[in-house]
Amino acid sequence: MTNSNTIEQYGAAFISHLESKIKAKEPKNLYEPINYILGLGGKRLRPILTLMTADLFGGNFKDAQDAAMAIEVFHNFSLVHDDIMDDAPLRRGKETVHEKWDVNTGILSGDAMLINSYQFFESYSPEVFKKLTSLFSKTAIEVCEGQQYDVDFESRDDVTIPEYLKMIEYKTAVLVAAAMKMGAIIADAPEEETSAIYEFGKNLGIAFQLQDDYLDAFGDPETFGKQVGGDIIENKKTFLFLKSLEYAEKEQREGLLHLYSLKPGDSKTKVETVKSIFIESGAVEEAKKEINQYTQKAFNALCDINIPEKNKHILKEFGENLMKRTV
Amino acid sequence: MTNSNTIEQYGAAFISHLESKIKAKEPKNLYEPINYILGLGGKRLRPILTLMTADLFGGNFKDAQDAAMAIEVFHNFSLVHDDIMDDAPLRRGKETVHEKWDVNTGILSGDAMLINSYQFFESYSPEVFKKLTSLFSKTAIEVCEGQQYDVDFESRDDVTIPEYLKMIEYKTAVLVAAAMKMGAIIADAPEEETSAIYEFGKNLGIAFQLQDDYLDAFGDPETFGKQVGGDIIENKKTFLFLKSLEYAEKEQREGLLHLYSLKPGDSKTKVETVKSIFIESGAVEEAKKEINQYTQKAFNALCDINIPEKNKHILKEFGENLMKRTV
Repeated sequence: MTNSNTIEQYGAAFISHLESKIKAKEPKNLYEPINYILGLGGKRLRPILTLMTADLFGGNFKDAQDAAMAIEVFHNFSLVHDDIMDDAPLRRGKETVHEKWDVNTGILSGDAMLINSYQFFESYSPEVFKKLTSLFSKTAIEVCEGQQYDVDFESRDDVTIPEYLKMIEYKTAVLVAAAMKMGAIIADAPEEETSAIYEFGKNLGIAFQLQDDYLDAFGDPETFGKQVGGDIIENKKTFLFLKSLEYAEKEQREGLLHLYSLKPGDSKTKVETVKSIFIESGAVEEAKKEINQYTQKAFNALCDINIPEKNKHILKEFGENLMKRTV
Repeated sequence: MTNSNTIEQYGAAFISHLESKIKAKEPKNLYEPINYILGLGGKRLRPILTLMTADLFGGNFKDAQDAAMAIEVFHNFSLVHDDIMDDAPLRRGKETVHEKWDVNTGILSGDAMLINSYQFFESYSPEVFKKLTSLFSKTAIEVCEGQQYDVDFESRDDVTIPEYLKMIEYKTAVLVAAAMKMGAIIADAPEEETSAIYEFGKNLGIAFQLQDDYLDAFGDPETFGKQVGGDIIENKKTFLFLKSLEYAEKEQREGLLHLYSLKPGDSKTKVETVKSIFIESGAVEEAKKEINQYTQKAFNALCDINIPEKNKHILKEFGENLMKRTV
C-alpha cells in the first residue's frame, strides 16, 4: 500500500486504463461517437477522485479503475444528452456529438454509454458489485432529477435558494460524492466511513458548483475555461442571481429582473450592470460565505473517518486547491 | 409450487405489481411521462414470459415480478427513445411521449427509465443480482446495436439476409430470450438450462419478428394492430423485400427497387404490386419456411431442459399460439 500518489499519477493511470478500453467496435455509427467524446479530454476529476479515495482508504487504487471508468463514462453520457437538450454546439472546444453526427446518434450513443457504464462494475465480486451498482443507480437517477429541475427552473420565476441548492446537489455534487464513496467501498472501508466520504464529496461538490457560478461572472477571462458572463447572458438563475433578488432594494431588484428578461445582441453593458448588482446587493459576499460553509462542512465530515492524518490532509489540501482554482 | 397459472393470470399479477410501482413523484415533468408510457398498456409479452418461465422451472413466479418490471420498463424506455428517432406521432394509439411533451422530455424521461429498470434488480441477493444485471446489460447493449443496424440499413442498398436476421435478433429477440432466462435464473435452474431457455426465447423471438414482417404485408386489416402495408409504404428492407430481391427475375427486381425508391401519396397500388412480387418471387414461401425453422429450433432447445413434460408442453403451446396469431 502506498499513499504517495499524486493527482497527476492518478490521472495518468486513469487515462491509460481508459485508452485500453477504447476499441473500434461495430456498428461504428454507435461506437465512434462514444470513443470521440471519451477522447475529448476534460479534467477527469471524478475518476481521479475514485482512485485517490481507494488509495487513501488503504486499498489498491488499481482495483478502483473500473469503477472510475463507470463514473467517467456516465459523466460523458450525461454531457452528450445534456448537450442535445441545451442545443450546445461545442463541448471542450470541439463539436458536440449531435453536431458532428446528428441528434439520433447522440441519443442512441448516449444510451449505449449509460448501459456500458454499468458493465464496468462486472469485474467486482457480487457483494461489491451490488453495492457499487445500487449507489450508481441512485446517483444516476438524482443526476436526471437535477437536470429536470434545472430545465424546470428556466420557465419558473419563483425558484428559491434551497431549491437551487438541491438542484446543484443532484445535478453535480452527488456524482462527485458517489465517485469518492465507490473508492472507499472498493478499499473495503466500514459503512459509516463510506458515508462520511460521501458527505465530504457532496459538500465539496456543492461548494465547487457555487464557485463555478461565481467564476462564471467574476473569473479571469484569461484563465477561466468558459466565456465569462455566460450565465448572465443566458439569464441563468444562479445562486448570485437568486440571492441578489432576495437582498437587493426594490429598484435594483426590478432592474435585475428587467435585464434578465432581455438577450441583447451586445451583452457587455448587461453583464457589467448585473455584476455590479451582484456585488452591491451583497450576493457575492453571501456566495463566498456559502462556499466556505460547504467546504467546512466537507472537512468536518473527515472527523468520522479512521484513516491516517496525513491522508486526511491530502483530502483537505485537494479541497482547498479546488476552492482556490480560477479555472 | 404450482404450474397451473395461465397467461391471463401472469398478466393480471404483473399488471397489479406494475400498478403498485407507479407513483406520482417529483420532479413531475420527469416522472409523469414515465407513468404515462407505462400505463399505455400493450401485450406485456416480455414480463409475462419472465413470470411464466420462473413458474415452469419450479420457482415462485412472484419472486420474478421485479425482474419482469425491469424488462418491461426497459422495453418502454426503448420505445420512448425509438419513437423520437423515428419521429413517430403515435404509440399504442396514443400520442408518443415526445409528441405529448417534447423531445427533451422524451430523452430525459427515457434515461431515467433505463436507470430505473436496473434498480428493480436490487431486491435480489448479490449473486442473483449480478447474474440478472449482467445479462440485462449485455441484452440492453445488443438492443442498442440492433437499433443502430436498423437505422444504418435505411441508407444502405446492400443489406444481406444474414445481416437482417442479426438485426432482428438484436433489436427484438434477445430481450425475449433474456426475459425468459431471468425467470429461469430466479427459479435457480442450472446454467445449461438457463442457456437453453435463452435459445428457446431467442429463436422464438426471431420467428415472431419474421411473422410480424409477414403480417405487416399480409395480415388481416380487421385484426392486425398496425396499418397493413406500413413497411412497404415506408420502404422498409424486411425479410420479404430482401428475399424478393434475391429470388426475383431481373425485371421484377428492378420493378421492386423502383417502387422502393418512391413514396407515392396514394400507396394502394404500390402496396398491391409489391405484395404480388413478394408472392411471385417465392419470398413469402421462404419466409414461412424460415418462421417454421426458427420455431422448430426453439422447440429443439427444450430437449436440454430438465422440467416436467407438461411444462415443456406449455412452452410449446405458447410458441405455437404465438405463431398462429394474426394480430
